[in-house]
Amino acid sequence: MSKEKDLIERFFRVLENPSSDIRIGIGDDGAVISSNSDIVTTTDTSREGTHFPANLEPKYIAYRSLAVACSDIIAMGAIPTSFLLSISHTDANDDWFASFSDGVKEFCVDYKCNLIGGDITKGTTCITPTFFGKLLGKPLLRSSAKVDDCIFISNTLGRGYSGRKNLSNTENNHFLKPNLPQNLIDAIASYATACIDVSDGFILDLERICDASKVGFKVALNSKHTSIGKEDLYCGDDYILCFTASKSDLENVLNISEDISHVGFITNSSNENEILYENQKVTFNKKGWDSFSQ
Amino acid sequence: MSKEKDLIERFFRVLENPSSDIRIGIGDDGAVISSNSDIVTTTDTSREGTHFPANLEPKYIAYRSLAVACSDIIAMGAIPTSFLLSISHTDANDDWFASFSDGVKEFCVDYKCNLIGGDITKGTTCITPTFFGKLLGKPLLRSSAKVDDCIFISNTLGRGYSGRKNLSNTENNHFLKPNLPQNLIDAIASYATACIDVSDGFILDLERICDASKVGFKVALNSKHTSIGKEDLYCGDDYILCFTASKSDLENVLNISEDISHVGFITNSSNENEILYENQKVTFNKKGWDSFSQ
Repeated sequence: MSKEKDLIERFFRVLENPSSDIRIGIGDDGAVISSNSDIVTTTDTSREGTHFPANLEPKYIAYRSLAVACSDIIAMGAIPTSFLLSISHTDANDDWFASFSDGVKEFCVDYKCNLIGGDITKGTTCITPTFFGKLLGKPLLRSSAKVDDCIFISNTLGRGYSGRKNLSNTENNHFLKPNLPQNLIDAIASYATACIDVSDGFILDLERICDASKVGFKVALNSKHTSIGKEDLYCGDDYILCFTASKSDLENVLNISEDISHVGFITNSSNENEILYENQKVTFNKKGWDSFSQ
Repeated sequence: MSKEKDLIERFFRVLENPSSDIRIGIGDDGAVISSNSDIVTTTDTSREGTHFPANLEPKYIAYRSLAVACSDIIAMGAIPTSFLLSISHTDANDDWFASFSDGVKEFCVDYKCNLIGGDITKGTTCITPTFFGKLLGKPLLRSSAKVDDCIFISNTLGRGYSGRKNLSNTENNHFLKPNLPQNLIDAIASYATACIDVSDGFILDLERICDASKVGFKVALNSKHTSIGKEDLYCGDDYILCFTASKSDLENVLNISEDISHVGFITNSSNENEILYENQKVTFNKKGWDSFSQ
């Protein structure tokens, strides 16, 4: 038996969970997903040294890499259902794979997702999940924000950044185990006009909505919206949603959850973009995280 | 604009091709695939130094990595339709990405597939495509070979291995540009009882069919079935199909294409597995390729 097959059988096949959506799961050349509707899919690579520190406990590498990729499914207005998992690791160390498998299992339980296949190769630790999700209604795009829409964030900024600076505290550490807004997305999807997951930094990701929608923004945040301070506006690793909704839905959106905050408005032109933090104008040179500038 | 977004816009967005199957393509948090039937999906990572030599021309890295992953879709009895592409590269070198993008484009034309999304991160060159395909009928599994079924290969063994040993010859090089049996799969799928793509070595992959089907095999090959010699039985990098079909369909299968050869039979038990090459018994210690033993 090849080492890859041996690892798959011992550490991943055991995680399989029968589901009516999965016609063929782990163990053949491909998986077969039963579907009579649209499928949302996305892939996102997490690399040792770039996206997580070397020697991070493998169960956190697994959980975090899965959550990071899954976040994009939720941001499309969908519920994650299953994923493929491509793993590179330098050796075929049983302890590493046992801990990694624990993290995958924990994620599957927390987000009711199924592992349906993948591959394992030798190399610097590098995790590439590909997620699948079911749309709750129409897909939530970046390109459909309208002038005068309200801008919201689904939770406090900077929690992942704070978690990364304090990895020894594993309790509720949002870097190690990002807590995704899966429970909110059904309600948010009924009001949102545009949506993105905040992964590379709030301002950068808001700009992506505005670029795609050909609009601008004015936001005003304060310490209630951040973990540390104004640096949380561009730190990245948030894995919350930034979304827009019509002014007429402002109260409805705020009633979804106390975690959601209204932080600004969509404007006509990016020439007048404005960022206030504690009533002070903020200008950033670095607007967010870019793996090529690390 | 982040470097990742800049690269996507300049080298990948231009490859988008409108398709009725793709509701949302490149540029949002996820892609949306329209589907009213089952979707086959698979992922396969190709790494520099492990799966392809360092400094291989980027267009071949792209084409080969895509073909290697796509091969599994065909082996499931499906036609590839689209793919996500996760790329790691050490820098954001324009020349590299321009050549890589050419390889992606060439693959998309050859196999009528669409790039629908992905990500780019900084790191040792590592390519992870995730493919999607449409089933032609029922999925072709490894687990459904029956005793007395005939064993077939869809083309000559060892062409990838020969290609790798002669990289300076880029003409019809099956390592650089694997020529997948996409044109044969519709016909093969109507007869095959079990199927696998030969990627890690013919004997190892045939054993995977037999393990999953709880049967054994007897095969007899000769120089007509190989490029170099008996080492081609375990060299890997073939990206052809090994499949089984009922004895009563032997002639029908051979009539599909001259490239297809009948090389043996499924037997009752793996205890009696037998491999002949040019009428000589062959025993191998190493049955195929394993990234962890490289």
